[in-house]
Amino acid sequence: MIVIMSAGSTRQDVEAVQTHLSQRGLQGHINPGTERNVIGVLGEIYPELQNELEFMQGVSEVLRVTKPYKLASKEFASGPTVVEIGEAKVRIGAGNFIVFAGPCAVESEEQVLATADAVKESGAQVLRGGAFKPRSSPYSFRGMGEDGLKLLANARDATGMPIITEVMAPGDVDLVASYADVLQIGARNMQNFSLLDEAGAVPKPVMLKRGFAATYEDWLLSAEYLMAAGNRQVILCERGIRTFETFTRNTMDLNAIPAIHILNHLPVVSDPSHGTGTWPLVTPLAVASAAVGADGLIIEVHPNPSEAKSDGAQSLTFKNFATMMSQVEAVRGALAEA
Amino acid sequence: MIVIMSAGSTRQDVEAVQTHLSQRGLQGHINPGTERNVIGVLGEIYPELQNELEFMQGVSEVLRVTKPYKLASKEFASGPTVVEIGEAKVRIGAGNFIVFAGPCAVESEEQVLATADAVKESGAQVLRGGAFKPRSSPYSFRGMGEDGLKLLANARDATGMPIITEVMAPGDVDLVASYADVLQIGARNMQNFSLLDEAGAVPKPVMLKRGFAATYEDWLLSAEYLMAAGNRQVILCERGIRTFETFTRNTMDLNAIPAIHILNHLPVVSDPSHGTGTWPLVTPLAVASAAVGADGLIIEVHPNPSEAKSDGAQSLTFKNFATMMSQVEAVRGALAEA
Amino acid sequence: MIVIMSAGSTRQDVEAVQTHLSQRGLQGHINPGTERNVIGVLGEIYPELQNELEFMQGVSEVLRVTKPYKLASKEFASGPTVVEIGEAKVRIGAGNFIVFAGPCAVESEEQVLATADAVKESGAQVLRGGAFKPRSSPYSFRGMGEDGLKLLANARDATGMPIITEVMAPGDVDLVASYADVLQIGARNMQNFSLLDEAGAVPKPVMLKRGFAATYEDWLLSAEYLMAAGNRQVILCERGIRTFETFTRNTMDLNAIPAIHILNHLPVVSDPSHGTGTWPLVTPLAVASAAVGADGLIIEVHPNPSEAKSDGAQSLTFKNFATMMSQVEAVRGALAEA
Amino acid sequence: MIVIMSAGSTRQDVEAVQTHLSQRGLQGHINPGTERNVIGVLGEIYPELQNELEFMQGVSEVLRVTKPYKLASKEFASGPTVVEIGEAKVRIGAGNFIVFAGPCAVESEEQVLATADAVKESGAQVLRGGAFKPRSSPYSFRGMGEDGLKLLANARDATGMPIITEVMAPGDVDLVASYADVLQIGARNMQNFSLLDEAGAVPKPVMLKRGFAATYEDWLLSAEYLMAAGNRQVILCERGIRTFETFTRNTMDLNAIPAIHILNHLPVVSDPSHGTGTWPLVTPLAVASAAVGADGLIIEVHPNPSEAKSDGAQSLTFKNFATMMSQVEAVRGALAEA
Repeated sequence: MIVIMSAGSTRQDVEAVQTHLSQRGLQGHINPGTERNVIGVLGEIYPELQNELEFMQGVSEVLRVTKPYKLASKEFASGPTVVEIGEAKVRIGAGNFIVFAGPCAVESEEQVLATADAVKESGAQVLRGGAFKPRSSPYSFRGMGEDGLKLLANARDATGMPIITEVMAPGDVDLVASYADVLQIGARNMQNFSLLDEAGAVPKPVMLKRGFAATYEDWLLSAEYLMAAGNRQVILCERGIRTFETFTRNTMDLNAIPAIHILNHLPVVSDPSHGTGTWPLVTPLAVASAAVGADGLIIEVHPNPSEAKSDGAQSLTFKNFATMMSQVEAVRGALAEA
Repeated sequence: MIVIMSAGSTRQDVEAVQTHLSQRGLQGHINPGTERNVIGVLGEIYPELQNELEFMQGVSEVLRVTKPYKLASKEFASGPTVVEIGEAKVRIGAGNFIVFAGPCAVESEEQVLATADAVKESGAQVLRGGAFKPRSSPYSFRGMGEDGLKLLANARDATGMPIITEVMAPGDVDLVASYADVLQIGARNMQNFSLLDEAGAVPKPVMLKRGFAATYEDWLLSAEYLMAAGNRQVILCERGIRTFETFTRNTMDLNAIPAIHILNHLPVVSDPSHGTGTWPLVTPLAVASAAVGADGLIIEVHPNPSEAKSDGAQSLTFKNFATMMSQVEAVRGALAEA
Repeated sequence: MIVIMSAGSTRQDVEAVQTHLSQRGLQGHINPGTERNVIGVLGEIYPELQNELEFMQGVSEVLRVTKPYKLASKEFASGPTVVEIGEAKVRIGAGNFIVFAGPCAVESEEQVLATADAVKESGAQVLRGGAFKPRSSPYSFRGMGEDGLKLLANARDATGMPIITEVMAPGDVDLVASYADVLQIGARNMQNFSLLDEAGAVPKPVMLKRGFAATYEDWLLSAEYLMAAGNRQVILCERGIRTFETFTRNTMDLNAIPAIHILNHLPVVSDPSHGTGTWPLVTPLAVASAAVGADGLIIEVHPNPSEAKSDGAQSLTFKNFATMMSQVEAVRGALAEA
Repeated sequence: MIVIMSAGSTRQDVEAVQTHLSQRGLQGHINPGTERNVIGVLGEIYPELQNELEFMQGVSEVLRVTKPYKLASKEFASGPTVVEIGEAKVRIGAGNFIVFAGPCAVESEEQVLATADAVKESGAQVLRGGAFKPRSSPYSFRGMGEDGLKLLANARDATGMPIITEVMAPGDVDLVASYADVLQIGARNMQNFSLLDEAGAVPKPVMLKRGFAATYEDWLLSAEYLMAAGNRQVILCERGIRTFETFTRNTMDLNAIPAIHILNHLPVVSDPSHGTGTWPLVTPLAVASAAVGADGLIIEVHPNPSEAKSDGAQSLTFKNFATMMSQVEAVRGALAEA
C-alpha cells in the first residue's frame, strides 16, 4: 500500500500517518526528496486500512499495490530515482547515463592504474574491478581480497573516479563498504537474502545484478529486500539470462531495460561483457543498450584481454573501449535530438 | 575452426598462421576490419591442428567450429549477401537497411491501403500482411487466404511497394509466390522441411524466421535447406525466443544479430513486434535492433491496433510508427558517422 | 462451451441442441460412446447462449470452458479416451499400456524384420520406423520414403504388429495413411497447422509429439486442431523439451504426464529415446515414465545401435530393450497392486 | 574422456583400450555392470588420443569430458559414496534409499511433533523442517530462527529421527550445525560460495540443492567447493529447473538422476514437492524418482497443507504421504527383483 500526501500537507500530517501505522504494527517508509511525500506501507495490510488512511488530513490518495514489491514499484516514487555515487557525486538515473569500466579482476597496481586512466580518458565515470570473485570452480582465481580493495582505492585517489566492486558474503559487507563507493551484488547472489539484508543496511549505493534465471518480479523483489532494509540507492543491472543458446555465454534480455522502466523507478544498467561473453559482441550490444534506454553500462576492459583472469566475460582492449564509447555517445546524442 | 588473434598480434603472426594452414591444404579466411584479426579455417580439420595453432605466436584462442552448414557459412561467401526484392529491386544487406511494415493480418481493402500509405510515408520500403495465418488455436481467425493475397497485390499496384506474406504449406508455395515478392516462413515452420524444400525451389526471396527454441545452428541449417534447394536469396529474421520470463511474450535475443553476422553472410532483420509482444517495447527494441547492426526491421502497424486480428504481437499506430522510424534513422545516421 | 445431456435425454433432445447451435452458426461436436452425451460447442460463443441451452429439454449442465481447447479438454469426455490401433485393435489409454518400438529409420528389410521380431518377443505391441525423416541438416539421410513404408508393411504382415511412422508434409498424408496404422507428427511439426488439418481428416490414429518449446496449452491446442478436423483418435507424446542443460540432448518433462492427465482425456506416451538422447538414460527414464503414469512408451531399438542412421536419439540393443521391458512390467505390476 | 564400447565389443577389445591407455600413462576406469562397457579416462589427455581410440576395435564413441571437477567426479571414487546421518547412522547412497520428510517451515511444537510422528510411522527416516527460510519477498514469513532449530531438536529427541534444516548465511553455519544432523543448502544459494566454503568446513553432511538454472557441471562444481573445503559427506538434490512451462512451478529434470550417477559418486535425492509445486503431482513424481534410481526423496508434509507457511511447494497430508510411501516401496521392491 502506498499513501500519497497532498501538495499542501504538513510535516504533522505525515507524522500522524506514521503514528497511525506504527500503532497498528506497520511500518511507513517515506520516499524523500520528491515534491510530494509518498509513504510506502510495509506489513500485514488489513481491509479497513485504506479507508482509515484516506480520511486522514493531508492524504491525497491511497493506492493498493498488487505487485508484491512496494518500495521498488513505480507507484512509490514520483519519478525515476537518481543515485549519487561517491564524493564526486556522480549521478545515474533520470537521464544521467554512467559508464562503469575496468578489469574483471584486480590483478596488480599497474593493471588497475593503466586501465583506470584509459577508461577515464574514453569517458567512463566509475572504475570497476573485482577483489572478491565468484567462480564456478573452487580451483579458479578467487581474487586478491582486501589487497585488491586497496589497489582500487589507490586508483580512485589517482584518478578521482569512484569505484564499484563485488561483495559476496554478509561478513564482508562492512569491509568492502569501507573501500567501495558502490557495492556490487552478483547474479549468483541475487537471492542471497542474508547478503541483501546486510547490504541494505549500508549507506552506500548497491548495484544488483539480475540472476541467471530470475524473472523481472524476482529481481525487483530482491531490490525490495535492499530497500526494506533501508537502502534506497539501488541500481539494477541486466547481465544476460541462461537459455538454450550456447554460441553466446548468456542471452542478453534487452526487453528488460524498457520493461523495468515501466515497472520500477530505479536506474538500470546493462552489462554486455557478461551478457554476451564474447568480445566481438560487446560493442554492438553496448550501443544497443544505450539505444534501448539503459541508464548506463558496465564494461570489462583490460590492458591485455587474452591474459585477463576472467570468468566468462571477455574484456575489451583500451582501443575497442574507446570505439565503443564514441558509438554509444553518438547514439545517445542522436536519440536526444530525435 | 576459427583462430582469434590476440590484440597485440602482428601482420607477421597472421601470415605465419596463413602459411601454416596453406601448407596443410587448408584455407584461412581473414575477417578484416576488426581490431583483432579472426581467421576462419576451411577444409578437412585434423585432430592436432588446434594444438598446433594454439602455440603459434599471436594466437589468442582457437575455436573448433565444425559447422554443419556450408552454403550458409561465412566461409562460403566473399562478403555479405545482398538480396533484391521485387520489381523495384529494393536491396537489403551489406549496409542496405530495409523496413517491412504493415498489418498482422489482411482484413480489408481499406485497412491494407491505409496502412500501406502510412508506412510508406514514414519510410518503410516493403509492405507486410498475413493472408495465411498460423494460429495456436484452430478457432482463431486463420486469414483471408487468396483474397488477402489479392488485396496485398492491389496495395502494391497502388503504392509501388513490394509485398511480403507468409506461406504455411508446401502446396501453397506456388500460389503465394505468384503474388508475393518475398515469401515469409514463420517461426513455427522453421523446421518444416517439406516447406523449406518447396520454398527453396522458387525464384523469390524468402524471409526465414527463427524458431521459438532454435539455436543459431538450427536456424542456419534451415537456411541451408533453402540454399541447398537452389534459393540463395534468404533473409533471416530474429523474432524472440521462448524463455522463463512471462512479462514479455518472448525474449528478443539481440546477441543473435551480430552473432549471425559473424557466422553467416545472409542479411538478418529484427521483429520487435513479436519479440516483445507488447507495443510500448516495440520502438525501444526497434531502435536497439538498428543500433546492434540489423539489416532491417519488420513491424506490425494497424490503423486501430486495439481492433487488430493479431496473434500476440501488438501493432503500432501510424503515429507511433512514424516516431519509431525517425528514431531508427537518427541512430543509423549517428552510427554511420561515428 | 460443453453441453452435458442428462442420463435420460433422448436422441431428439440431442438433435434439438444441435439444431439450435447450427441455426446460430455454431458447431456441436458429439462425444459418442459414453454413457451420457456430451456436446462440445465450437464457434463464437455469445453471452446468452449458456442460458438458452440450460433451459432446453434433456440438458443437464452447461459448462463454460475457459481453456482455449475444448474437444481436448477433460470436461468434453466422461473419462479417459481409448484409442484402437490397427486391425489387431491394440488398445491404448484408460489403463491399457502400449509399447511402440523399432528403428529410428527404416534402412533395409533385414533390419526392420529382425527388429520387429526382437521387440515383439520382448512384449512391444506396435512397430515404429521412420520412412520420411525430419533432419536438422539437409545433408543427413532423409529416409527411404515409400520404399520404407513398404518394408514396414511387410514387417506388419510377417509379425502381425500394427505400424507407426512419421508424416512430414500435408501432401504425403494420404500416402502414409495408406500404409500406416498410426500417423506420427514430430516435435518440429507440432505447429505445422496445414499438416494437422490434413492428418485430422484421416480415419487413422495420430500420435502428436510435443514441440521443443511447447507449453502444455500449445500442445493441447495442436491436438484440438486434429480433433476439430474430425480425428478423435489422438495420442500425445512427451519427448523432452529444450533447456539450458547440454549433457542430455533434451530434458524430459515427466511432470507433463500426470499434468496432461489432469487437463485432458487423451492417452499420453513417453519417448525417452529422444527425451534423453543418450542410451544409458533410456531404460531408467522408461521405467520412470511407467511409474509416473504414462499410457505407453515409444523406444528406438536397433540391431546394431552404433551404426543406426539416427538423429540424436540413441537406440537400445535388443538385449537392453528386453531388460527395459521386464523392468517396466515389474513396476507396472507393483503399482497395480499397491 | 569417456570411451563407450560398442554392443558387440569383446573383452579383448576392452583390454586393448586399457593397455593403450596405460602405455600412455593414463588410467582407464571401467564402469561395470552395464551391457556395453564404458571406460573413464583419467590423466593428462593429449590431442591425438581421441582419434587413436576412435579407430580401435570395438569402440563405439569417444567423448571428451574435460570435467573441471575432480573430487566430485566418478573417476575419483572407487564406487558410490555412502553418507551417514546423525547418531542413528542412517545411511544413504549405494542402494540405501532414504526419505526426508516434514513441514516446509517449523511453525510450532505441535506441528513439528505431529508431523514427525506421522512421517516416521509411514517410513520416513529423517525429519525436515525450515527454521531459516529463503523467501523471494522480504515480507513473507522468514522462519522462526533458532527457536525453530530447538523445536526440531526436541522432535529428534522424541522420535529418534535425525533432522535436516536449511542454512542461508555463512555466519549461521556453526549455529545450525550445532542442532542439525544434515545442513541443507537451497537452490538460490547453490553458488553462494562463501556459504559453501563454511559448510565445507563442518563435520556434518550437507544436502546441496540444484540451482534453478544450474547445469549438471555447475552443480557438481558447487559440490566440489564443499569437498575441496574438506567435507566429503555431500548429498545432491534435484528440485526442478526453471523453464518456459508455467502450469507447474518448476520442471523436474529426472534425466538428472541417472546422469549424475554416471558423472559422479555422490548420492542424489529428488524433491518433487518443489519440482512440481502442486500436490497432485508430488506422488507420481516421487514414485518416478524412485524408479529412475534416486537415492532418496525429500517431501513436504503438513498436518493441514492449506494452512502451511509454504513457499511454492504444496505439502502432502499425512494420508497422502502414507500412500506415496507404499507406492514408492512397491516400485523399489519390484525393481530390486527385476
